[in-house]
Amino acid sequence: MTDTKKQHNKQDKVGKASEENKVVTPQNNCRDEVNSIYTGEFAHPADAADHIENLSIEKQVCMMEHLSSEDAAEALAEMEERAQTDIIENLDVDVAVRILSEMSPDDATDVLDELDEEHRDVLLERLEADDAEEIRNLLAFDPDTAGGIMNTEIIILSQDLTADQAIMHIRREMEDKEIPYYAYIVDSEERLVGVLSLRNLLLCRPGTVLEEKLSDQSLISVVFDEDKENVAHLLSRYNFMAMPVVDYEGRLLGVVTYDDVIDIIHEEASEDMLGMVGAGQDETVDTPWLESVKVRLPWLFINMMNSSISAYVVFLFEGSIAQMAILAVLMPIVANQAGNTGQQALAVMIRQLAVERFDRGKSWKAVLREAKVGALTGLIVSLLVMIGVFLFTQNVLLAQVMASALALDMLLGALAGASIPLILKELGRDPAQASSIFLTTLTDGFGFLIFLGLATMFIL
Amino acid sequence: MTDTKKQHNKQDKVGKASEENKVVTPQNNCRDEVNSIYTGEFAHPADAADHIENLSIEKQVCMMEHLSSEDAAEALAEMEERAQTDIIENLDVDVAVRILSEMSPDDATDVLDELDEEHRDVLLERLEADDAEEIRNLLAFDPDTAGGIMNTEIIILSQDLTADQAIMHIRREMEDKEIPYYAYIVDSEERLVGVLSLRNLLLCRPGTVLEEKLSDQSLISVVFDEDKENVAHLLSRYNFMAMPVVDYEGRLLGVVTYDDVIDIIHEEASEDMLGMVGAGQDETVDTPWLESVKVRLPWLFINMMNSSISAYVVFLFEGSIAQMAILAVLMPIVANQAGNTGQQALAVMIRQLAVERFDRGKSWKAVLREAKVGALTGLIVSLLVMIGVFLFTQNVLLAQVMASALALDMLLGALAGASIPLILKELGRDPAQASSIFLTTLTDGFGFLIFLGLATMFIL
Repeated sequence: MTDTKKQHNKQDKVGKASEENKVVTPQNNCRDEVNSIYTGEFAHPADAADHIENLSIEKQVCMMEHLSSEDAAEALAEMEERAQTDIIENLDVDVAVRILSEMSPDDATDVLDELDEEHRDVLLERLEADDAEEIRNLLAFDPDTAGGIMNTEIIILSQDLTADQAIMHIRREMEDKEIPYYAYIVDSEERLVGVLSLRNLLLCRPGTVLEEKLSDQSLISVVFDEDKENVAHLLSRYNFMAMPVVDYEGRLLGVVTYDDVIDIIHEEASEDMLGMVGAGQDETVDTPWLESVKVRLPWLFINMMNSSISAYVVFLFEGSIAQMAILAVLMPIVANQAGNTGQQALAVMIRQLAVERFDRGKSWKAVLREAKVGALTGLIVSLLVMIGVFLFTQNVLLAQVMASALALDMLLGALAGASIPLILKELGRDPAQASSIFLTTLTDGFGFLIFLGLATMFIL
Repeated sequence: MTDTKKQHNKQDKVGKASEENKVVTPQNNCRDEVNSIYTGEFAHPADAADHIENLSIEKQVCMMEHLSSEDAAEALAEMEERAQTDIIENLDVDVAVRILSEMSPDDATDVLDELDEEHRDVLLERLEADDAEEIRNLLAFDPDTAGGIMNTEIIILSQDLTADQAIMHIRREMEDKEIPYYAYIVDSEERLVGVLSLRNLLLCRPGTVLEEKLSDQSLISVVFDEDKENVAHLLSRYNFMAMPVVDYEGRLLGVVTYDDVIDIIHEEASEDMLGMVGAGQDETVDTPWLESVKVRLPWLFINMMNSSISAYVVFLFEGSIAQMAILAVLMPIVANQAGNTGQQALAVMIRQLAVERFDRGKSWKAVLREAKVGALTGLIVSLLVMIGVFLFTQNVLLAQVMASALALDMLLGALAGASIPLILKELGRDPAQASSIFLTTLTDGFGFLIFLGLATMFIL
């Protein structure tokens, strides 16, 4: 999570580092690494952050101590959460405070949020009172909501100002902050009443009072406790660079910027794919492997229980299988094929729920669509399988039973694959979570039941 | 795909519509719909687009005819590709040309790209020569590359200008275009040499020549034929609002903006999830169902062939199953559990490849990590299953065989799940494509082989 206003300025800051920081001559074991930052080896702080993340913790700490506070803060802001926490925990309190003061409040909040409370309080005590209060306020928001990711360094203008007063105000702010593209206009109660771009301001006649420019704006904003994924949907729907965040009285609190939204969309896609198969929703290849074991085991047990149910169905037909072992040969084909059909429907539906606003009517129409796809693909595949089984076994009845079971199970797979995410959603759960496990239970169990059942009835 | 520069201005344009367009009084069958746009019912053109998309094609066409060209263009830009094509194909050529002229060149290109060549040429003939040439140039780029998604309405400044000349130039451009946040600086050969923010310009001493401000910038840009997903990775890595696109000589062609990148990231996530199970990578719930059947059938056949291989393994042990039908009961549990283990590894790896730059060393280390997770979860689950099978069958040997087969197959599942995306990637294929199908073939086939093999060797 990085702060846009700082980012806006990144393309020009990169180069400046080498100019401003030549004074630094680290007498220590990270001299080469520190120099590499100032010799222009890295085009961007994100590249420097990558490089630092791969060093030993000793070198990381040493670099943080010897880089300029600004460069250290920029690199730290670009690192993964885990690396941020490791570094701050190992850093001298003075150095940590020096670096945190250089970070934007929302970046600093992200870092402090990961620390244990005691350590966090020590650092907050040492920060300047203003910064500390700002960060304490931000820490109070749930990190999964608009408030938890918002950026508070914005230009706020009172609606009573005239356009020329506004421009003067922005010019003053510009000295120590990057000017953002939008200015947010508030009334006397600090309630958000409008948004103006720099262009609007520069094209106004000087004496125009801002309020007059806003009369017919329809304003889009979110409340601080809005889920961050919904904020991401809205921002991407409206192509905003930043989405204003307000409290329940409509008072402006901050903005969520497009770069945080890009991170949220990345996370959301990972969560869906990982959740679907019962892996940890925030697992990456960097997660310690024992942590992955801990997260995945419960779902593997649930999968185990579920496949025991399917196995029990087979057990009920043990006698039929003993009589006709070929049934055991064909039975996995039914289950596997219906499972794949169902997963196709599942994937389409999970993405639908991830990308678009939830529309109940449209979603259930989509289930119907999947049922049609499942019915037709089932029919075609079954006909071919019928021929195949007949050629292989010379048993017409068996071929017919196999084809019927396959067609029915594929239809069920499509229906189940499309419905499971919707049912989870209606129950207030994550539509992806373990959906693939539930699906397989259904397609396996039903597949075995119908295939072995039909075989027992018609062949044996 | 919508154009940022137009978007920047969106929050203020929305309201203006009702002011400027009260003259429109459609004498026709879409009067209510057109009025709904001008009564402020929709907060944003994206909302209006949504509304229009759900109308009949007759009403859609009628609205496009009766909305102001600007409003029609904005709504059209926000619609899905399919809806855009339907509308333009049904629209009178004059009206279509009027609306297309109001669109930004990159949006107009997206629309025209979907039409058949003949219709496209008719429309291009009728557009103003300048616009038509710009669009023809853009149509020449592969839509999956930086060139195919770039936006060409940017502010370009010569490096010989002084800061005050630059500001005057921007003020002039501002009259009919939105000023973007960045200005791109080129040399006499039109090669990109730097990027300056408005803040940089406004803080310069008036006489400063731009070139001097650029001396130590390290510039990040992409070549026009760079894959659009790589462009998205870079922009999100560096938190840029826009990534400059250049030709092989370094001449500036345009920029890719954050809002297009958000769309690409959404698409990419869908492609991974859909591709993994062999659905169409651009399928949504709006895809005509017969098209879905066509896309999915080939993968279902491949899945069929693959599960026939696993079935053949079972067939080899038909004799063992006839002797001991309980084997058929337990066999699906092995396959299912190993399949789930493998899918967890698969999902982690596909996301890794989607979110980070490819790093061969890191990726193969991740396979090792998954192997450890697979080995330990396999061990734990197997021990429990051993106890369960013993309690259920009172057969110690069978319980041991089952546990061994399960542990081995889960390890294989983890290894295969983690390796398949990497192998596909190394082969130059999409790492997600049908990976789940390949995985299941391995875990099913190997699971049946090892379980039935061990049982035949040690029990029968």
